[in-house]
This record gives sequence, C-alpha cells and structure tokens, in this order.
Amino acid sequence: MSIKLSSTSYGKSAVRVMKVIRHDDWHEIKEVEVQTLFEGEFEEVHTKGDNTNVLPTDTQKNTVFALAKDHLTGSIEEFGLYLAKHFADNNPQIHKITIELSQKQWAAIPANGKAHPHAYQRAGNERWNAKIVKDASGTTVKSGISDLLILKTTDSGFSNFRRDAFTTLKDTDDRVFATSLTAWWDYNATDIDFDAARAKTQAAMLETFANHKSLSVQHTLYDMGKRVLNDVPQVQKIDLDMPNKHHLWVNLSPFGMENQNEVFVVTDDPYGVIQGTLERG
Amino acid sequence: MSIKLSSTSYGKSAVRVMKVIRHDDWHEIKEVEVQTLFEGEFEEVHTKGDNTNVLPTDTQKNTVFALAKDHLTGSIEEFGLYLAKHFADNNPQIHKITIELSQKQWAAIPANGKAHPHAYQRAGNERWNAKIVKDASGTTVKSGISDLLILKTTDSGFSNFRRDAFTTLKDTDDRVFATSLTAWWDYNATDIDFDAARAKTQAAMLETFANHKSLSVQHTLYDMGKRVLNDVPQVQKIDLDMPNKHHLWVNLSPFGMENQNEVFVVTDDPYGVIQGTLERG
Amino acid sequence: MSIKLSSTSYGKSAVRVMKVIRHDDWHEIKEVEVQTLFEGEFEEVHTKGDNTNVLPTDTQKNTVFALAKDHLTGSIEEFGLYLAKHFADNNPQIHKITIELSQKQWAAIPANGKAHPHAYQRAGNERWNAKIVKDASGTTVKSGISDLLILKTTDSGFSNFRRDAFTTLKDTDDRVFATSLTAWWDYNATDIDFDAARAKTQAAMLETFANHKSLSVQHTLYDMGKRVLNDVPQVQKIDLDMPNKHHLWVNLSPFGMENQNEVFVVTDDPYGVIQGTLERG
Amino acid sequence: MSIKLSSTSYGKSAVRVMKVIRHDDWHEIKEVEVQTLFEGEFEEVHTKGDNTNVLPTDTQKNTVFALAKDHLTGSIEEFGLYLAKHFADNNPQIHKITIELSQKQWAAIPANGKAHPHAYQRAGNERWNAKIVKDASGTTVKSGISDLLILKTTDSGFSNFRRDAFTTLKDTDDRVFATSLTAWWDYNATDIDFDAARAKTQAAMLETFANHKSLSVQHTLYDMGKRVLNDVPQVQKIDLDMPNKHHLWVNLSPFGMENQNEVFVVTDDPYGVIQGTLERG
Repeated sequence: MSIKLSSTSYGKSAVRVMKVIRHDDWHEIKEVEVQTLFEGEFEEVHTKGDNTNVLPTDTQKNTVFALAKDHLTGSIEEFGLYLAKHFADNNPQIHKITIELSQKQWAAIPANGKAHPHAYQRAGNERWNAKIVKDASGTTVKSGISDLLILKTTDSGFSNFRRDAFTTLKDTDDRVFATSLTAWWDYNATDIDFDAARAKTQAAMLETFANHKSLSVQHTLYDMGKRVLNDVPQVQKIDLDMPNKHHLWVNLSPFGMENQNEVFVVTDDPYGVIQGTLERG
Repeated sequence: MSIKLSSTSYGKSAVRVMKVIRHDDWHEIKEVEVQTLFEGEFEEVHTKGDNTNVLPTDTQKNTVFALAKDHLTGSIEEFGLYLAKHFADNNPQIHKITIELSQKQWAAIPANGKAHPHAYQRAGNERWNAKIVKDASGTTVKSGISDLLILKTTDSGFSNFRRDAFTTLKDTDDRVFATSLTAWWDYNATDIDFDAARAKTQAAMLETFANHKSLSVQHTLYDMGKRVLNDVPQVQKIDLDMPNKHHLWVNLSPFGMENQNEVFVVTDDPYGVIQGTLERG
Repeated sequence: MSIKLSSTSYGKSAVRVMKVIRHDDWHEIKEVEVQTLFEGEFEEVHTKGDNTNVLPTDTQKNTVFALAKDHLTGSIEEFGLYLAKHFADNNPQIHKITIELSQKQWAAIPANGKAHPHAYQRAGNERWNAKIVKDASGTTVKSGISDLLILKTTDSGFSNFRRDAFTTLKDTDDRVFATSLTAWWDYNATDIDFDAARAKTQAAMLETFANHKSLSVQHTLYDMGKRVLNDVPQVQKIDLDMPNKHHLWVNLSPFGMENQNEVFVVTDDPYGVIQGTLERG
Repeated sequence: MSIKLSSTSYGKSAVRVMKVIRHDDWHEIKEVEVQTLFEGEFEEVHTKGDNTNVLPTDTQKNTVFALAKDHLTGSIEEFGLYLAKHFADNNPQIHKITIELSQKQWAAIPANGKAHPHAYQRAGNERWNAKIVKDASGTTVKSGISDLLILKTTDSGFSNFRRDAFTTLKDTDDRVFATSLTAWWDYNATDIDFDAARAKTQAAMLETFANHKSLSVQHTLYDMGKRVLNDVPQVQKIDLDMPNKHHLWVNLSPFGMENQNEVFVVTDDPYGVIQGTLERG
C-alpha cells in the first residue's frame, strides 16, 4: 500500500490578547483573538517524528504577545499583515501562512456626563474578523464580521415558493426576519485604510438590511452584497451567511385572541441556512 | 423507614417571547425569557401519581404567550407581577409563585441618518432580569442585571494581603480590572416606576465602577452598592457578584522588552469569586 | 443613611486539576474542577480597602494544586475535606469554608483486547460533584451528580391534570421521558466510603428511572429519591432536579403517515422544571 | 459596475430527530441532527425575489421527519443517501445536494443485572458524523467523528524543535497528550456496510493513539491515519484534526515540592492546531 500525506497544517489558536494603549489622557483598548496556521515542509515531522522544522505553537503564541506590544496599534488587518510577514521572513520552511484575527467590541462607560477615559463595557455581540494569507503567490486580506444579531419586524415576506407533498408552510407577506450575520469580504489591495473600508462595508449591509422590502432572505442578502460592492470600491467579493433564525407566530386563537403579528416564539433550531457570494464581474 | 417530601417545585423555563408593539410610526420590541415556578399542594403528584392539582407546564407556557399580547407593554417587572397575580387568582392549590424574567437588549439600526423605525441590532451582552415572588405573606420584586462585561485599565491595585507558604502573588498598584457583573436588588415596594429605578441603579453601578480608586474588587463592589443605596431610595438591598476575570500581565523580558501594562492574556479560568450584599441598616 | 454589609464571600472558581497517579503498571487519572469560597472577617476589605485578612484567590489556587499532589488520591469528597481543614487550620479570620468539586469521567481506551494502562477517553457527559461546608458548627458533606442525560421511550404518561382556558395539552399514556438529571444528597457522616455510597446512590436512581411506570416526572422523581433513602443508609436527604427535556411527537398525518410514537423532535427550550427533596422523617 | 452572483446555497440546519424503533422486546433509539443544503438554479431568487424554484427549508425539515419514519433504520450514511436521492429525484432545479448528519451516542442503562430494554443514558461526548454529496458527477460519502476527547499520560514527548528569539518552550520527553479528535474519511464506494467500516476506522484510530510512542502530535496523527488506511480498504482518504489541548505542568518547587508529572492545569485556550490528510497514493 502506498500512502501520501496530501496536506498538513499546524499553528496556535485562541491566543487572546488585550492591548492597552496608554494615551496621555485616555486608554485605548483592543481585545483580539489570534490564530496562526502554517503549511510547508513538514512531511518528516509526521512520518519520522523529526521536529527540526517545527517552530513550536508555543513560540507562535509568544510572538503574538511580543509583537502586539509595538504593532497592535491600528486595525487587526494591519497587525495580521505584520505577523504574517514576520513569520515568513524568519521561516523559509513555511510556504503558506494564514493569520486569523477576531476582535471583540468595547465602548467607553458614560460617567460624569461624558465617555470615561479608561473604563469600558462590552458593546454588542459581534466580532470583527480578518484573515491574512501569505504564500509564494502573494498576500491577500479578507475582512469579516460575525455574530451580528439583526432583526426587522416587517417589510419581510415569503410566498409563491415551490410546493411538494411535504409542504405545509403557508405564504406570508409579513413576518419577523432575524439573522446572525456572518460576512467575509475580499479586498483588492493590502495597503488600504482597513478601518474606513470596514466601517463603510458594515454600514452598507446594515442600512440595506433595514430598508429592504424583502421577498426572501436570499433577496435581501443579494441587495446587501450589491450595495457593498457599489459603495466600497476596495471590496472585490463578498460572502454573506444569513441563517434564518425563526421567530414563529404563536396561534392564540384557541384562547379567543387574534395574534396580529405581535407575539412570536424565539427559537434556535432548526434554522434556515442562506448563503451567497457576490463579486465584481 | 419514614420518608418526608420536604419540598417540591415545578414550572416552565426558557419560554422565549418576542413581543412587537406596532406603534403608528415605529415598532417597539421586547425579547423576554420567562420562567414560572410553583410550590403548593403537590405531594400526591409525587407519592401517588395523582395529577389533579397540576396545571401543566405546557399551559404555563401558553399563558405566558397569551398574556404577553396585552400585558407585556412596559417593564418586565410589571409583566411578571401580572403573571403572578393571574396564576394566584386561578390556582388555590398553588401557595407560592415565582416568576423569573430575563430581557435581551436591542437598539435601532442607524439608517439614513436616524434610528430605523423597525430594524434592530443586539445591543450589548447584558440581560435585564427580574424575579417576582408571591405567596400568602405578600409579593416581592427583585430586579437584576447579568452578563454585563466591564473593564478598567487603571485605578486598580491589590496589595498588603495575607501571605502563607503557598502565596506567590506579588503586590500590584496597577492592574486591569475586568468583571462580568451580576447584581440583584430588592425593591421596598411593588408599585414603583421600575424602568426609572433600573436606569438609576445601573448608572450608579457603572459610574462608580469607572471612577473608583480600587484597592480590591471587594472595595469597588462595596462602593458600587453604597452608591446605589444612596441614589435609589426604592432599593432596600443589593447583592453584587463580581468575578475577577483575570487579565494576566505577560512577561516580555525574555524577549528584551518591557511590558509596561500594555499587553495582557485574557483568561476565563480560573477566576476569582467576589460577592457582597449591602442593605439599609 | 445607614448601610450594612450583610454578607460577603470570596474565593477561586474553575481551578482545573488533572492528577495522574503513576501506579507501577498503570496510570490512574482524576480530572477535578475545584471552587473555594470563604466567609468571615472581611468587612474592612470592603469598607476600607484593608486587605490584611485576604488570603489571595491566587494562593487558594496554588494550594489546590499543591495539596492535590499528595492528597487527591481517592474520592473528591475526601480531597474537599482535606482542603477545608487546611484552610480552617491556617486562617482564623475565615469562619466558613465551602469547597465545591466537580469530576469529569474518563474510561480506559480498549486496545489489544484489554483496557489500555495509560490512555483514556471521555466517558459520558455527567459530572460527579461534592460540596464540603466547614464552620464553627461542624463539617457537612453533600455529594451530587449533574448533566446525566437519561431517557426512556415508554412506561411514561401524563394525564388527568388540571385544565384551564389556556390548556391545549392532551392526555397521553405513552411518551418519551428525557431529562438531564442533577441530584444532590446529604450524608449523615463525614467518614464514610464516599465512592461506595456514590455508586449505590447513582445505581439506585438509574435503575429506578429505568423500571418505573411513570405517571409524571414528579412521580418518578419521588420513586428515585425513595429508593436512594431505602438503599443507602448514609444518605439523609436528597434533592432531585429533573427538567423535562421535551421530545415532541411529530404529526405526520398531513403526509398520509401515522406516527406511532416513532419520530420525535428533540428540543432544548422551553423545558419543564421539576424539583423535589426527600429526607428521612 | 457588473456584479456576479458566483455561488449560492440554502437549506435547513439543526433538524433534530429522535427515532424510536419499537422491536418486540426492546426499543432501539437513534438521535440524529440533519442539515440539508442545496445549490442550483437559484439566481432569480436573489436578484428578483422569484421564489418559484425554492423548496422551502420548512419543507426540507418536514421531509427529514417524514422519511425518518421508514428509512432511518440503519446507519446515518444510508439515511443520508436516501434523503439525497429523494431531493434529487423530485427537484430538477437543484444541481447539488449536501446532506450532513450527526448522531449522538446512547447506551442502555444497566438495570436488574442486564441492559434495560428501553431506558438509555448518554454514552460519551463524541458524535458520529456523515456527509453525502450528490450532483451530476455522482454521489460521495464521507464519514466522521468529532468531539472525541482522548488523553494519554505518557509515551508522548516533543523535542529538538526549531528555536528563535521568541522561543521559551523546553524539550520534554514525557508530557500529557490530550486532544478532541475530529476525523473525516472518504469512502471509495457508496454501498458498503457503513457501520462496520466506521467501527474498524474508529478502533484503529483509538488503539493507535493509545499505543503510539509519540514524538509530536503530528507524528501520532500520521500513525493513526496510516493504520486506518491499512485496516479499512474502503477508506480512500482521511483528514485528522487533533488540537493540542494543553495540560500544563504545575511548578510546585516554590512550595518545596517536586511535581513528577503528577499535577497539571487543564486549559482550553490557547490550544495547538494540528491537522493532516493522508490518502492512498
């Protein structure tokens, strides 16, 4: 029998950094979770137990903390690019480096009528994500957002769909539309103002979600993606994942009441999966 | 052998309601999770399988949805009081009713330069909680908040503590202080403006947390509780639970760097438990 | 305004220990999560920031690891008793010590036709728990189990219950009965064979659950508790918490099929809460 | 600007089925979570809100429950193949169907000295998974396992690795090796005895893990994959994902104790990522 080791990767995940930037009159914070992942000349690690080429995952972790001191000062995309370059410059045995970063949101606590300079509270559930890939062909940057819970109470319907023997769903022209948005977008450059591009991308998705007259989740997803490609020239491609987190209408008629889209059961499962990718033609 | 059934309770948990209040030009939403719990004449349910006195948990769930239609219009405390009274009025076999409610936070999505009238995003991680207890001796209301992640980057130390043979911790006069706040407070009345009292209580805790010169988590916890009792006359007693979510200083000296409280590891476990209850004397 | 600090406690939680006992021809493992909690003379910690009496939670953590080396050799109850005594002997300022312990289950991997001497796999979801309380009045031991998922496919009904205007549930004499059992039992001594008593208690609950002709969750809960008090003389009292994890019958009649209790939807929420405490009379 | 909808997919996730097979003298149970995912002629759903081609996700859910009645009788792989064929036969607008299935483990409760015929307890944490893909080019079956927690207390080292300025890790020839195994393997046929092939694959991985003299996680991963390809001729390819769930040695020397690999801290993060794919050459 002939056996081939067709792919390998290794790295460190869930490296959780809190960076405090001590400005003169306020403290800025960045909470970022980092994953490093390497591919390259690692066959003999597997086949012979030869660790010569293995930069330990513990060292990768140390590197993230050490480089965070001077280089985690702006966007997670910039920090990821710096990390990728550092590992590439020092490790010829690594042929492909993937850095994933995920940032949690904090907002200043309001105190004494203004934003407190060094006290924070968690702001929203969502995470800002980035993925840097560096190999012989170059470097690419993806940004993303996840766990963004959004909901609209009207301007959403679903009707005239395909029916078969197992269909019991009825047409509706007014329902709650709730999702936990995950989006990833590819930039067409690596030297842009990532925070500005993110802000425009996220605002475009949110505003479109809010304003759209939705005939299906798919229909709104497409409009959100189209608006991003329209508003943000640096975005080449965008993937949207918008699970349909069902809010089910409750039948109150057994109790002599009419539920005019006022009372819903919130459910986690099952949920609809709706995914789409849009790119420049 | 003589066996006594010394206590019993039953009810329905995780009843997840989304209420949409369709105002003329905007939709207000309330996402509330409810638990109902009953104690009373249920001995023979256990000992004989006689279900005559058991109002099914399924009925309790139905009741929450049905009464939400007309009565979940203001604070969760008011809805809980209404539910408790409903069950008490109709079920003489129930001697004690406990209603727990937990509300998730949503904020209007900004669109077209203003708050959108019917599209929302999750706002913060925290939950607003309430607990209503009704029995022969009367009705009490507790309110609370949980999962409120707060953090300050300075004005926090811990020193001059007790030491023994297993102590390796060093004194510090500057550390990151992070917690996931859970607080419960007892009101001295059941007919107050619960939303106003909650707003004042939460603001008092947050502002005190931000401003305090902390010599320990305990020290700040006390100041937060004292400020609530000072600012909110309707609060009789407050329990605070402030786990010390450690952000550990990273030693960068092996890499020739000095970490001047800039880089920390975020950890979930182990964590310090710090709890205290303050009440009017 | 007069303010009273009516209670305080502090300690360390989620101290996660893996202990390897290196026997001559096999390795025994114990994975235990420990929480220490202290009450006592801590008022001035809160009111003045005076830490003199505070044995740091970091020291508590160190103590758990250090004492695990020689003393985590048998049951978690014995280790908890040892920890409580250690802290009490060395800290007169502490008036009440609570040690909580939770053990995960591992089983030897089968290899080469027998149990491997030093390789393990997780066995079941359940946790074995213990709670030791030591104060001026003495020492008590509770043991428990949690997250034990159990299910029976028949011999379970629920009928002849109380009905009101919100009742839509129908009588059933055959349903799936599933729960995630949490139980806590109090021992009437602190020098017993805890592992033997636990084994008998758990077997009594499981066998009763399996064999019972259930007229309600309450009915089965009671029988399980009664059997424990009958079989295990060292148990003085037992609390059982048996949430009704609903497995809902699926109506297949719209598809021309009859579902004879064959196909169910598994749900997490909402769920029924069913609790009861039995003790010797 | 020209915009292309380059990919779309939709389906239903977290459809949680409990199937009870009522044999004459015992009840067999299967708890399976199903996801259906469709790709095909769905462009106008997105661009025009035309739902004509959309078989609702609600119908997909109904179909899973309805077909479970007669066809979820053996392996999850066979049920997945049946579902895929059903959807393909009835929906020419769907060009690719992906069915994912995940089965939880239950074992009969021991009662009265034998396995009880209709009462069960959760057995282990792990899930048995399968993924069926059906499109114009044919049908493929992958099987997998996830969340299998395994651990060995010795026969594991890591040394002679690459070092740089950020390396602080020391060589070790004896450490705890713990992982949460996820594996996926591709079969070279769709008509095999899936349960038998799974049993052999899982046993091969477990036994190899237990017996291997490990020079790194990578080294053991490779040996496990090789053994599967050696033992199970129907497996064409296998991916293994073996995160290094670190159990950190605790330094007890400050307390005058020597920790001879007896006491470890269990941690969840950060963790090492170790992945590899082996296939027949």
